[in-house]
Parts: sequence; structure tokens; C-alpha cells
Amino acid sequence: MLPSTRSLAVEWGVSRTTITLAYEQLIAEGYLEVRQGARARVAQGVGAPRSPTKRQASPTPPGHLSAFARRLEGFVAPSSPADRVPGVVDFRYGDLSVEDFPVLAWKKAIDSALLRRPARLRYGDPGGLPVLRDALQGYLWRARGLRCEPEQVIVVNGSQQGLDLCARLLLDPGDRAVMENPGYHLARQALGATGAEVLPVAVDDDGLRTADLPPARLAFVTPSHQFPLGGVLPAGRRRELLAWAQHHDAHVIEDDYDGEYRYDISPIPSLLSMDEAGRVIYLGTVSKTLSPTLRLGYLVVPPGLSHLFSRAKRLTDRHTPGLEQEALATLIASGAYERHVRRARRRNGERRAILLSALAATLGDTVTVIGAEAGLHVVVWLNGLARDQEGALIARARDAGLGIHPITPSYAPGPPMNRPEMAGLVMGYAGLDAPAIERGTRLLRDVLRDFVRG
Amino acid sequence: MLPSTRSLAVEWGVSRTTITLAYEQLIAEGYLEVRQGARARVAQGVGAPRSPTKRQASPTPPGHLSAFARRLEGFVAPSSPADRVPGVVDFRYGDLSVEDFPVLAWKKAIDSALLRRPARLRYGDPGGLPVLRDALQGYLWRARGLRCEPEQVIVVNGSQQGLDLCARLLLDPGDRAVMENPGYHLARQALGATGAEVLPVAVDDDGLRTADLPPARLAFVTPSHQFPLGGVLPAGRRRELLAWAQHHDAHVIEDDYDGEYRYDISPIPSLLSMDEAGRVIYLGTVSKTLSPTLRLGYLVVPPGLSHLFSRAKRLTDRHTPGLEQEALATLIASGAYERHVRRARRRNGERRAILLSALAATLGDTVTVIGAEAGLHVVVWLNGLARDQEGALIARARDAGLGIHPITPSYAPGPPMNRPEMAGLVMGYAGLDAPAIERGTRLLRDVLRDFVRG
Repeated sequence: MLPSTRSLAVEWGVSRTTITLAYEQLIAEGYLEVRQGARARVAQGVGAPRSPTKRQASPTPPGHLSAFARRLEGFVAPSSPADRVPGVVDFRYGDLSVEDFPVLAWKKAIDSALLRRPARLRYGDPGGLPVLRDALQGYLWRARGLRCEPEQVIVVNGSQQGLDLCARLLLDPGDRAVMENPGYHLARQALGATGAEVLPVAVDDDGLRTADLPPARLAFVTPSHQFPLGGVLPAGRRRELLAWAQHHDAHVIEDDYDGEYRYDISPIPSLLSMDEAGRVIYLGTVSKTLSPTLRLGYLVVPPGLSHLFSRAKRLTDRHTPGLEQEALATLIASGAYERHVRRARRRNGERRAILLSALAATLGDTVTVIGAEAGLHVVVWLNGLARDQEGALIARARDAGLGIHPITPSYAPGPPMNRPEMAGLVMGYAGLDAPAIERGTRLLRDVLRDFVRG
Repeated sequence: MLPSTRSLAVEWGVSRTTITLAYEQLIAEGYLEVRQGARARVAQGVGAPRSPTKRQASPTPPGHLSAFARRLEGFVAPSSPADRVPGVVDFRYGDLSVEDFPVLAWKKAIDSALLRRPARLRYGDPGGLPVLRDALQGYLWRARGLRCEPEQVIVVNGSQQGLDLCARLLLDPGDRAVMENPGYHLARQALGATGAEVLPVAVDDDGLRTADLPPARLAFVTPSHQFPLGGVLPAGRRRELLAWAQHHDAHVIEDDYDGEYRYDISPIPSLLSMDEAGRVIYLGTVSKTLSPTLRLGYLVVPPGLSHLFSRAKRLTDRHTPGLEQEALATLIASGAYERHVRRARRRNGERRAILLSALAATLGDTVTVIGAEAGLHVVVWLNGLARDQEGALIARARDAGLGIHPITPSYAPGPPMNRPEMAGLVMGYAGLDAPAIERGTRLLRDVLRDFVRG
């Protein structure tokens, strides 16, 4: 039983109101109990001694983890921001130059979205804002020759979320999924995280070798520009892949991650535009055209799967942020997005030309460069260097202030399949200006020469 | 074999360059093949007859769906935007008034993030921008008395993504999870979507009845303000819940969805601040303070789980959009966020007072109102109306231009447990101004009177 508010107020020399407020707070938090007409008393269970358990210093967290969590633990650790090269030139693939971002157009579009002031602030449609789904439908038709209904477009937080949704909706533990080898390692992880068995299938100069496809539930492909090797999947193989999906009652994820960037020829039509049986899920993104930090991407799913992807998106995170969706819709509808893509294509074409001449002039036939027809990266095979020296070379380069990145993580774990014997790099150029590209190429030559000499 | 470019140019009366470009495009797309020195020919497999399969008109999509997908199909369908009441007043919980959003402060913060121009546009830390994690650490200490390291803070796209990550990392099919009943239905679905068995545990005026907890891997609770009934979990029950977690090697998700909104007393300390054993995962959001459309939330996870949540976040969608993270960090660091929260609390306190007097004056003892001490909603039990009439009343209200929302979806499916016999509503007021609240209350009285009379 506690003292009355009156006696406590006298004892502490404060007003009775203060004591009453303090009591009310303690009652609200459950430390005190009060019965009708009686004085407050300490609530049951509160006076109990503290649990003797000490905070565990062990790095192993207590508690049960799911099989999904244990699979994540087993994947190769991602590079952390702390691994970033502090030095001069970083050829990391995926980075874009801040100079290319249309700051003013984006700012204007966000501001006008902010000032539009809807009637209420409320959760939006899980599949995306209707205005953006309409705009994307038009864009996909104009830019990629792709016909779909707006309801088939599902707006996601970048293509990684699209991959994760596909994996969760289409794969069970023990199912089989086909993956390009080499291929995009975060796609391999997204498929594998479900507990499905991910079957690597070899890639050649024309992309995935579709003649050898094993039975599976799902295939992941990059038909416009195979990542990382750069092949374009020929029409015959596309047919073969679609027939395989039909035969095995499977789906195909078409990751069109850089379909906007082709330099010598027009963009390649999408696999989806050949799909008559509703097997293909198309994956697009603005991470290569605007910025990877915006986290905006989209799926085009078969009509029968649209409601399911919407439901999954809702359960996952309700919907993609509203202001960004409105801003992108404004940019596409006004034509500013496509003007921007043309400008970005021209600038990246210039960077590519500079990198290719710098590599040819500086490194000559010590390297073999492939996959340069499209995209924002090239693969550079180091002819004089064995595969197992890749890691050591990269560490040496890092010390010299040069960021280079190995091709090895693109290959499936386990014994290498169909892979050249030499070390290889994936070199992105979209984040660098001309002087940096040239300086970086010279640095690579110096590091490589010192490394080979020992 | 195709005609030579020269003969085709003559035949069609166009320049040879045009024909050469067309051939190159067809070669790039794989429709034509060309061997060294030979003329182009149609590629293998391209001339094959089209697959006879027609586009299926059936609503059942082809292809295999995962168990996760089939579980989603089994959940009660969410209301769609088309279900929204076109009329006058909607008491939907979760909506906020656009008047309360700090448009200028947010615009300024986004603009300055846009103009800051980092060195490169690149993927960010999956756990969140360091500047935001630091700002949230300070905020949580000042506002919620919660101590943590910035590394324990994981920035997510609203609390729904936080729930989904917890469910995926901590639950396997067949595991058991404890859920408040009634409780937040999207939490129930997120836990159940993993294939875990979700065990409903009854709630009383003090929140979850912790004395009856069955063994499980995970518990979901809203201790500061039970959703939807409004109880505050007393200190003794908090102790009991933490001891349960320790005993069963389980985790507890503390969803502090509206911890900022208490009107008569100070905010209640978090469950996490009592947790000495690293069992509690705290879930916060700005959906109730700024806007649900921003999709910004945060987890505070035990130190040993931080790397795992980061990895899962990366695989799920890389990271939360960068500009929004910077903007929120700016608002928190400058003090503008807390000033805004105080203003929003005052305004919602006014709305609450207006709703409570309107309900008392207009509906009197035909209703019982509970859970009004905190948050942005109340539960209204309709004393004269049987439970099974809820749906019909809501449809009638809809025809009259009044949006009211049933409590039933908050209860676990199956035979009702511990639930009053009468119909009930969850009434949110944060999206409405004073005249709308009063008009809505009168509309409710009219609809109810007509409905009871038949």
C-alpha cells in the first residue's frame, strides 16, 4: 500500500497535483494497482526479483532461427561499405555518375507530387499507383515493344524485390530452378534462399544454352544482355526456352536490367513479347537509368498472376513509396524520362568507347574484353593470370587505390563449369568520367605488371 | 540463305547502308546467322512453326505456385481501393489528415538531400543510412527511453516489412507463433504466411493474457496500446512475457505502432527497455506520425541478430530508398520531427475529444467506447446489435456515404474466443476534421437507428 497523495506531497514538499500525476503514470504503466476507493498499491509481479539471466556476450544469438535464416548465413558475405576502396578509381558495376542524374527534373516532380495534396494520406494500391502503371505500360510499348495491361504491371522496390517475390511465390524447398552460369549472384541467392535447388546451366557467347535445360519450376535469364558475359539470346533459343517452360509447367524470369543500353543496334525485343502462354515474368528497373538508390522497379506478370503478386507485395511492405511513384509517372508521362534515357545512353556510350580504347591502348592483348555491345560494364579476362590469383590481384589493386571486382562470384559455387582458366574482372564504367577511366586503366596496367613480376 | 545487301538494296530502291543496318539488327536479335565470308541466312529454330498452344483464357494461371502463394490465396481478401466509400465521412483506421503533414519541412529535407550530390550513386547499406540509424538511436532514447546501438537499428519500408522479415527469419512451417486475439490482422497473415501455426491468445483490458501463453517460437504483441482494444500491458505481464520467451528460447515482436500518441499520461516505456536477454525485436514506424505512404519504419533487433536482418533486407530489396532516409534523418536531427510529433499529438488529441463527446452526445449508451487513452482510434461496441449483423450494418452505412469498419477481421478465424456478443467497429479519427467527425457520428446514429428498426 502506498502513502496517500496528500501525505507524500507534504513529505516531498511538492504540490498534490504533481504526486497525483506521478501515481497516474505508474498506474498506466502497470507498476501500481488501484481498486475502487482504496489506496494505490504496488502491482502483483512487479516486486519480484529480477531474472538472474545476464545479457549474453556470446556472438551466437539466442533463440531459434528459420531455415531461411540459416541459408542466408551460408551465402557468401556481401561486401560492406567499409570494403570500399578509399582511393582514386572504382570500377564497381552498378554505380552511376551523379552527373547523369536529372536532379532538377526529379526535384520538380517530387515537389509537385508533394504539393498535389490528396484528400487523405492513406495506404495505396499494393500493385502500384494507377498513374504509374499506365505510364509504364506506355513506356514498355514504346521502348521495348512490349504489350501488357496496366494490371499486369506490379511496382516494386527495385528488381531485387521483384526477384524475391517471384522466388517466394513460385518456389518451394526442394524445387529446382535453372540459373545462368555465370549469372547474377543476388538472383542465385534469392532463388536459393527459398530452399530450392538452383541448377547452374552454362552460358556461351549467345547466352543461356537452352538445349541442355533440365526439368525445373523456374528459370532466371538475362536474354537482352547476359549478365555478366554479354551475349544476346538468339530468337531460336528464346523459342526453345519458352517451349521448355510450357513442357515443364514452369515460369521464366526475364531480367531486363539494362535493356535501355545498346550502342550499335536498337534495343532487342523482350522475351515476354514472344510469350503466348503466360510463362514469362518481366523484370525492369530504373536503377541503371536514374539511380540505384531510388529503389524503383517493376514486374510485368501474366494476367492470371497479377492478384497474387499484389497480395504478396501487400504482405511484404504494403506498397512502394508514393511520392517516388508519382514522380516517376510524371517523368515518363511528360517524355522527360525517355529524353533522359537517350542522354544517359549517349554519355555511357562515350564512357564505353573511352574504356575500350584505353584498354586496347594500355593493356593490348594481355586482356580479352567481351560483352561490350550493350549495358554498362564489360568483362575483362586477364590472359596472363591464373584464376586462383584473382583475389590477390584485387587486394593489391585496392592498396594502390584501384577498385576492381572479380568475376568469380558470378559463377555458381562448387567446381567451375565452362569457365576460362584465367582471372577475370567485371568492370563497370557508368560511375566514372573520362579522366578517371583512363587513369584507372593505367593503374590496372601497373598493378597487373607488378603483380605478374611478383 | 538471304539475298546480298546489294541486290536487296536495288530491289527495294533503298541505300545499301539501310539494308546493312537492318541485317545487323536481325543478326543481333538472333534471327539471322552469318558465318565468316558467307552470306547471312535464317538462324536455326527460327523458321519452326509456332507452338500450337493458344493463350489460355482460364482464370487459373498455368504453372506451379509455392505453398507460400497458396497460403496467401487462402487469406481473407484485402479491401481494394474500389471498396472505398465514395461519400462523406470515412472512419478508416490508418488514414491521416493531409493537413497534418509537414509539407514544407519534408520538401526542404528532400531537396537538400537531392542537392547534396554524393560522389557516386550506389547501393547503400542494407541496414540503413548511418546518419538515419544514428538519428533514430537518439530519438528512441529521448522519446521512448530505449537504449540501443545504431547497428541494432534496421531501416525498413514501414512496419509491415519489419514484420515480414521477422517472420521469415524466425519461423519455419509447422512452428508455433503466439498472436494477440483480437490483434492486427496483417501481422497474423505475415506470421501465418510462413507456414507457422498462429496461436490466438486472448486479450483483456490489460492486453495480452500472459499467464496462458503456450510454448511457441515467437510472440507478437502491442504492449503500449493493444491493437485494437487499447489495453496497456502492465509491468507484471511484461515480466511474465519476457520470462516466457527466455524459457521457450523464443523471440517477442513489440509493435509500437502508435507509441507517440498518449493523451493523458506520458508515453509508456517500451518492452524492449526491460529486455535483458536479447529476446525483443522492437518495431517502429512513421506511418502514424508523418504518412503511411512514405513507407518508412525501423526495427531495433538484438545485437546478435543485426547482421542477419541486414542480410535479409539486402536480399529482399537491397535497402530502403535513400532520399527518404536522408530526409527523415534531417528532420530528426534538427528537432523538427519531434516538434511535428507534438503538434500531431495535440491535433489528434483534439479530434479524439471531439469524437468522444460526439459519440456520448449522439449515441449515448447505445454504444460502449473503449481504448481511447492512446492511439488514433477507438473501439465502439454497438450494444443493441448482434455480432452477425456487423457486415449488413457496414453495407448500409456505405450506401449512406459513411465509411465504418468492422472489428471482426481483428479476431482470429474460427470460433470466436472471449469476444463480446455485439457488433463492433474500429473507428480511426486521424484523417478527419472536427465537422466531419461530428457529421459522421450523426450519420452513424441515423444508420444504426434505421437498421435496428429494419
